[in-house]
Amino acid sequence: MAWQRKILRVDLSSGSVATEPLNMDWAFQYIGERGLATKYLWENMDPKVDAMSPENVLIFATGPLTGTMASTSGRYAVITKGPLTNAIACSNSGGKFGADLKYAGYDLLLLSGKSPQPVYLHIVDDQVEILPADELWGRSVWETEAWIRSQQQNPHLKIACIGVAGERGVYYSCIVNDLHRAAGRSGVGAVMGSKNLKAIAVQGTKGVTVADPKKFMQVTYEMKKLLENDPGRKGLTKLGTNAMMETMQEFGGLPTRNFQQVQFDGYDKVGARGMRVRKPNGHVNLITNKACFGCTIACGRIAHIDKEHFTIVNRKEYWHASGGLEYETAYAFGPMVGVDDIDACTFAGFLMNEHGMDPISFGVTLAAAMELYEMGVITREDTDGVELNFGNAEALTIMAEKTGKYEGFGQVLGLGSKRLCEKYGHPELFMGVKGQEFAGYDSRALQGMGLGYATSNRGACHLKHDTFEVDMDDQSGNGKAKPCKTSQDFVAMIDSTGLCLFPASAWGTTEFQQQIDAACEGDWNEQRILECGERTWNLERQFNLAAGLTAADDTLPPRLLEVPAPGGTAKGKVCELDKMLPEYYAERGWTSEGVPTEHTLNRLGLT
Amino acid sequence: MAWQRKILRVDLSSGSVATEPLNMDWAFQYIGERGLATKYLWENMDPKVDAMSPENVLIFATGPLTGTMASTSGRYAVITKGPLTNAIACSNSGGKFGADLKYAGYDLLLLSGKSPQPVYLHIVDDQVEILPADELWGRSVWETEAWIRSQQQNPHLKIACIGVAGERGVYYSCIVNDLHRAAGRSGVGAVMGSKNLKAIAVQGTKGVTVADPKKFMQVTYEMKKLLENDPGRKGLTKLGTNAMMETMQEFGGLPTRNFQQVQFDGYDKVGARGMRVRKPNGHVNLITNKACFGCTIACGRIAHIDKEHFTIVNRKEYWHASGGLEYETAYAFGPMVGVDDIDACTFAGFLMNEHGMDPISFGVTLAAAMELYEMGVITREDTDGVELNFGNAEALTIMAEKTGKYEGFGQVLGLGSKRLCEKYGHPELFMGVKGQEFAGYDSRALQGMGLGYATSNRGACHLKHDTFEVDMDDQSGNGKAKPCKTSQDFVAMIDSTGLCLFPASAWGTTEFQQQIDAACEGDWNEQRILECGERTWNLERQFNLAAGLTAADDTLPPRLLEVPAPGGTAKGKVCELDKMLPEYYAERGWTSEGVPTEHTLNRLGLT
Repeated sequence: MAWQRKILRVDLSSGSVATEPLNMDWAFQYIGERGLATKYLWENMDPKVDAMSPENVLIFATGPLTGTMASTSGRYAVITKGPLTNAIACSNSGGKFGADLKYAGYDLLLLSGKSPQPVYLHIVDDQVEILPADELWGRSVWETEAWIRSQQQNPHLKIACIGVAGERGVYYSCIVNDLHRAAGRSGVGAVMGSKNLKAIAVQGTKGVTVADPKKFMQVTYEMKKLLENDPGRKGLTKLGTNAMMETMQEFGGLPTRNFQQVQFDGYDKVGARGMRVRKPNGHVNLITNKACFGCTIACGRIAHIDKEHFTIVNRKEYWHASGGLEYETAYAFGPMVGVDDIDACTFAGFLMNEHGMDPISFGVTLAAAMELYEMGVITREDTDGVELNFGNAEALTIMAEKTGKYEGFGQVLGLGSKRLCEKYGHPELFMGVKGQEFAGYDSRALQGMGLGYATSNRGACHLKHDTFEVDMDDQSGNGKAKPCKTSQDFVAMIDSTGLCLFPASAWGTTEFQQQIDAACEGDWNEQRILECGERTWNLERQFNLAAGLTAADDTLPPRLLEVPAPGGTAKGKVCELDKMLPEYYAERGWTSEGVPTEHTLNRLGLT
Repeated sequence: MAWQRKILRVDLSSGSVATEPLNMDWAFQYIGERGLATKYLWENMDPKVDAMSPENVLIFATGPLTGTMASTSGRYAVITKGPLTNAIACSNSGGKFGADLKYAGYDLLLLSGKSPQPVYLHIVDDQVEILPADELWGRSVWETEAWIRSQQQNPHLKIACIGVAGERGVYYSCIVNDLHRAAGRSGVGAVMGSKNLKAIAVQGTKGVTVADPKKFMQVTYEMKKLLENDPGRKGLTKLGTNAMMETMQEFGGLPTRNFQQVQFDGYDKVGARGMRVRKPNGHVNLITNKACFGCTIACGRIAHIDKEHFTIVNRKEYWHASGGLEYETAYAFGPMVGVDDIDACTFAGFLMNEHGMDPISFGVTLAAAMELYEMGVITREDTDGVELNFGNAEALTIMAEKTGKYEGFGQVLGLGSKRLCEKYGHPELFMGVKGQEFAGYDSRALQGMGLGYATSNRGACHLKHDTFEVDMDDQSGNGKAKPCKTSQDFVAMIDSTGLCLFPASAWGTTEFQQQIDAACEGDWNEQRILECGERTWNLERQFNLAAGLTAADDTLPPRLLEVPAPGGTAKGKVCELDKMLPEYYAERGWTSEGVPTEHTLNRLGLT
């Protein structure tokens, strides 16, 4: 109940397509989605293999609540070894693709091997076909979706695919589904491309059965009411995530020009307010908001660009509406590269969408390249003649296009910031952790965020823990270890349900527990679901240790550890990671080397 | 083309259901069905494993011509390690099940492992489900078919299943499909039962595509014309296989009372004539004939029993029509056990059908038990009080029922003749080869048949070679090795196409080649298709050698080698196997120990 109790395996080398019963022992230990897929990954591959090799395993995972009437039930996760980080990658996404995968009858889809030719996967319930994608190779995400629907003459297909970036191995390529949603981080799209898999098109008609339908209806109704009245939800619906721009500017935690500054003069032009303002020519960036399947928040934005203003690339398809700026995109294409042109930022966002790339990693990589350019390390000869100064809006869009198409200097930007900075002899300029670039929060201003960045299993990430409130309350490293650990386990639990992180502004452990317990067979109390989250976190850590990572990878760049914040509320502060990290290891029941103790592993049933 | 290019794997231990592309290299080397399945068996299991263990693999295989418009295109083969013989088992069957399996999109179905509970497999095109069969366990073949169709509310399902005999491990249990057709020999049903698999229900809607449709239509039309005008075909249509009873009686090759005699006084009562005669009470055994899917011969018989006459078991369902006597059943239940009661033979045949057992092996085993009973070795205490004399029609039906239900002495009869004779200290009375019982031909009268029996890879068998004409012409062992070898390869080729052996009365290599070549991609000349047959034969031999069999298993019972035929045209003769076998090994390119030489293996691409 709530699980479909069946997984789908596709070996792209042999063309074998297999289903098998879901391992219910594992489902009871990991719930679903992120946790359960981590367990399947652990059992099905050697963490040491090259992330881009056929031996890597790519898992699409739904949770027990995916596709149910719970709010935000459109989530699925992609779990694999990430090429950007050489650590476990765990990216989730909304839209409706996940719900359809589940309706087709599958809790998880495991992909192994590598197809000899480009292919796409076509799934309609029990019908699973590996079909040629030669005509799709080289096409954009949007072309791919249209082509498959047309070829299959089936408008009901939900499609997750990669763009050219994923085909060509840009290390932060993402997997885009339902046109505007993406499993964005850690390069899961590059793994998909390395397997010669262009797309997965799925239609499901089987529905989902919950354990206690009456109770589930009642509980989810109450939870939707809670969410409806929640101020955090209201802000997300009205302004989207980009409202954060103003908050970070005021707080002085807005990473600017590769973290050289913590505030950005043009913040208001590319933030939520900038999206809503009517320009003198009458243009407004924002058209409307948009919800994922089952969601009662609708944080997504639909925007368009000002074609009168915008002359950089005359591609008329971009005049039409597409996914508008979320905060992380706005941060990475705005303050981080010093650009205050909302049309350029929006257009670069469209390009990320079209070519299938993570805007955070692209923007932060470009910022590092800009710093190196201003230092004179990178020159116009490297950049195909483009002036790569901070603030050059045209450079932003040109480089987005070049990287997406894997052309010229785009191939260098496609390495990601860590490899790029190493290539040019300045590894200290890489702003990220474990090879993955930072989101839009400076950890000198938000200390717990710094600890979360340093310890996140998929590399620098703002979505795998939540210390926001304690960080705003206290800008020292004191008392951050416990809330960091606790929230990591809490988020790992949420990520394992099939629901979104965002309702957590209204729902605590109790609210998630009630929905899980009504939907799933078995007895799910609060302690148990949090333990599932902790188990997942520790298994991810085990994966990374087995892959060769160590405590030395739980660190931050010297710019955050040694260079005092140049302004804002944390002016003069550095990130106190050296204080927080040992406390965190202790909280986790890990050794001072960051290794889970036997006692911890025993307690979680991980031995 | 002609192949579906996809195989289905079901692992009953894990519940995994997988499809993968057909290995086309192997298809080009083995055509399909018997040959191709032998290759898959060879590549997917250790020949040394216990045939009844989960490690045995059970393959249902169609050929490229299965389901096409060629005549007799309803064939499929079951390939596995046989528990009766501990050698490779290869049983094929008609009906429509094979065509539907192919229409569902699969060339082969590979079953491995063992289900924890009784299950049946439900296949409708891409939908493949392993469903509980607890309610089916203990049910007859006929009940099983009705139950599944009712449960699935789908009258189009074609069903292959086992009866209680297969569930309980009767060593010669068969797999019955379409109620009256069976993959009959070597205990393939016992393997299915050992896997807790009661039935496979399949509906296919995908059709088959041939390489050259126009040519294929023309060729198959011509072949049907040839068949229509063939005297052998006419005899089969009119009289069925049981016309052979009279031929063997006249020739003196009709095994009687466990091969103690070679002619049987009551032969005419249980032969084709006996099926058509109107008794004084007005009853006629034969109702009509019946064809398998696509067949233009229709050798099958539908008969009923005389309820006035027949009082042994009062089960009214048997008053209705069911599968009538074929020659091998009539031989095994008539002369072999000395019974001349056509109703008893027909009823025992119904029981074989209902319980899923091979009538040849059952009858020959019963004959050995009767000989041991008349010798005083087996007593009424052993037989649950039943008089087991030759000629006891009631004993025949009672023991058929007991064996089918695995009750009392039926459990001993269920061992098969070899194990039964060994159990009672008289292994010399086992009339068969490699653990499998003889069909209705005495190899003192038909010398080439003796060589074929001795060398058949699945144990004593009349269907894997054809030396009938040379045997009728010359009753010595002279010149039998070459036609035996040649016909074995020819039959292995036919068994690999998806067509039936019986059109071979009208079709030679050329006629099969034309149909294969029109249906299949690639260039299929006569030499190539015969080489495929030879390759298959040698790979079967390799399997048996790897399983532990040796040249010592290529032998016949002393009664045929040492005791002169007591009558008929071969009176005074023994089977000259000692002369034929070395010639045969040489013809095959095998060592004097019956092992294929490196040269032979190289020539056939088997190294």
